[in-house]
Amino acid sequence: MSAVEELRNKIAELKQELDQQHQNAVQIGARQRIEKMSAEVVDSNPYSRLMALQRMGIVKEYERIRDKAVAVVGVGGVGSVTADMLTRCGIGKLILFDYDKVELANMNRLFFTPDQAGLSKVEAAARTLSFINPDVCIETHNYNITTVESFDKFLYAIAKGGLISGQPVDLVLSCVDNFEARMTINAACNELGLNWFESGVSENAVSGHIQFIRPGETACFACAPPLVVAENIDERTLKREGVCAASLPTTMGITAGMLVQNTLKYLLNFGQVSDYLGYNALNDYFPKMTLKPNTDCDDSHCQAKQREYQAKAKPILEEQPITDEENPVHETNEWGIELTDDNAEDQGESTPAQTNEVAFGLRHSFEAPPTQKQSSGAHTINSTENVDLDDLMAQMKSM
Amino acid sequence: MSAVEELRNKIAELKQELDQQHQNAVQIGARQRIEKMSAEVVDSNPYSRLMALQRMGIVKEYERIRDKAVAVVGVGGVGSVTADMLTRCGIGKLILFDYDKVELANMNRLFFTPDQAGLSKVEAAARTLSFINPDVCIETHNYNITTVESFDKFLYAIAKGGLISGQPVDLVLSCVDNFEARMTINAACNELGLNWFESGVSENAVSGHIQFIRPGETACFACAPPLVVAENIDERTLKREGVCAASLPTTMGITAGMLVQNTLKYLLNFGQVSDYLGYNALNDYFPKMTLKPNTDCDDSHCQAKQREYQAKAKPILEEQPITDEENPVHETNEWGIELTDDNAEDQGESTPAQTNEVAFGLRHSFEAPPTQKQSSGAHTINSTENVDLDDLMAQMKSM
Repeated sequence: MSAVEELRNKIAELKQELDQQHQNAVQIGARQRIEKMSAEVVDSNPYSRLMALQRMGIVKEYERIRDKAVAVVGVGGVGSVTADMLTRCGIGKLILFDYDKVELANMNRLFFTPDQAGLSKVEAAARTLSFINPDVCIETHNYNITTVESFDKFLYAIAKGGLISGQPVDLVLSCVDNFEARMTINAACNELGLNWFESGVSENAVSGHIQFIRPGETACFACAPPLVVAENIDERTLKREGVCAASLPTTMGITAGMLVQNTLKYLLNFGQVSDYLGYNALNDYFPKMTLKPNTDCDDSHCQAKQREYQAKAKPILEEQPITDEENPVHETNEWGIELTDDNAEDQGESTPAQTNEVAFGLRHSFEAPPTQKQSSGAHTINSTENVDLDDLMAQMKSM
Repeated sequence: MSAVEELRNKIAELKQELDQQHQNAVQIGARQRIEKMSAEVVDSNPYSRLMALQRMGIVKEYERIRDKAVAVVGVGGVGSVTADMLTRCGIGKLILFDYDKVELANMNRLFFTPDQAGLSKVEAAARTLSFINPDVCIETHNYNITTVESFDKFLYAIAKGGLISGQPVDLVLSCVDNFEARMTINAACNELGLNWFESGVSENAVSGHIQFIRPGETACFACAPPLVVAENIDERTLKREGVCAASLPTTMGITAGMLVQNTLKYLLNFGQVSDYLGYNALNDYFPKMTLKPNTDCDDSHCQAKQREYQAKAKPILEEQPITDEENPVHETNEWGIELTDDNAEDQGESTPAQTNEVAFGLRHSFEAPPTQKQSSGAHTINSTENVDLDDLMAQMKSM
């Protein structure tokens, strides 16, 4: 073998090693896909602790999670952890929407890592999530859903993105940080009649909330719009130069946890899904409430869905008055803990979440209709006409 | 230049690229250490959103977090997320204790990744955490703290592990999954007079809790021992072959969030630290309570600390009766939300967490002493003498 030949062989060898390095960087340690979830209790089974929920009597058929598709709109402090939790739970499909980039300034929240700075959030998230669980189908959309041209793409993605061909996703999770995007998701879900969860964390980092919105059945985001929306104020004018919102990984993690836990309860049909669950970190206070739809809602699709819901619900309500027996304490509740009763106000009791006091900066810009006692147990919160900048700021902070 | 020379140059070039690849694999994207936390609002500042807590009026001096050392015992589903959150918050020092290895069966909870399977949990966690935030000092202890020889090492590590030479850590966080380890932490903290948080997640994955234990001031873990401890039962005999506990990233994430949020409130002196905060995922119920120390506690260090606390507290209590003015609604609470009053029982009100009903499987194996109305507002929970296997299982599930 000549010296030249030897050197050429050496080069081929080095090139091969480099290729291997590049490949490793992409899929170091990644596991193989798993065809069927197993309940087998071995260290190598990533689903054993989830399938154990069946043996514990919590979930009837855990594996049904593989048939579910969920859209996560906004992959920031709450959305990224939400996607991470759903991925580790083995959700069938995730559709991620964001148009922002990862920055070092995001490192005070869970999920993203410093090496991802500069990558688009959806791309960075998709890489990490596929690596954690290659069984989840992940689809990314890197655009702002609030622009006119993007709205149709967004609408199509959630209307046809389900795991059954041509069907919508099973749930939309809003993890965005502004009212305009929330109103966009609200409009899309009202039009499609899709159930969705709203979520938010306050600008001062010490409170958060989730809200389950079922078009026609509960208040939509436009039924009880924040003042900043109702007054048609450009929210960007409320943000000041050189000032950023505070955030904590704790509040974001708890809000994502409440969001995904209620998502699991809804998708896998166990426990009670909360209509609204708040969190105040300063005193560990977690208010719950239900918001009735506004019959004068500005969104015509909401009004149409309300009429559909009333038409369907009426004969049921008239024939079968709801009794306590229909809301039994969950079978697995072995500790005699009493469930919080949303009808408590009817029994003369009152908790902060159930009075007419405004909680968590939630303010309604319209007068509440006269309370109609309904067997559904839903109730409204009184509004106020008193509009000033303090109110607006309090509201901004409550989102 | 000859062909041989050209080939040699090519080899040198390829070798250099390979070296670079190897180096990247070790420290790809890692950022430089930051000498001083800055509040500057730029994308490259990992602390801007945390320092904003000062401008928002939530925390007086956020940077004091850099002077704090926290021990995290147990780096599993709750402990790993706890360490992750504290690292992203920029804690000064973390001391991690565990003796377990990462397995694919852990992938249904946040933090660890499939490529870490086989690594020790403390080593895998330390690598990830140092990469996320190189400003945090991370110390690892890879042993079982419950063995006789390890106990002294554990005691020394928390007694001398503070950031001021020779001083103890500022707080111990228990994130273990068994009673024996909890009793070990309890014994160490009683001996040293160190404040610590207990935490736990139920075997059926749908409840969790945190408990703040201040030796002498609140009940210690031995004051109100779970039956399995009081009856001296080997808890390993309660676990069945081929059966594993269920777990969910949501419940673990929420429990870690509650734990770290209360840690931040305690270390940085804002809001109200909860003595006990529970979480029931099935109905989004979060009970709160306070447990008084047991004057007949089996732990002699606890009894000594109780006498010290009483001696210190007595003159203060006699001279300054506690009034509502000493517990004002937090200044940043702009929404008029009323704080939950632990004294509610004195006013004839009652919530599930404040009655004598047993919540979350907590059962006391001793008769509660006659209730002494004290201005501290603490209260006890009645015990039961009724010991059977169902009780034990309910308790196991509640941890």
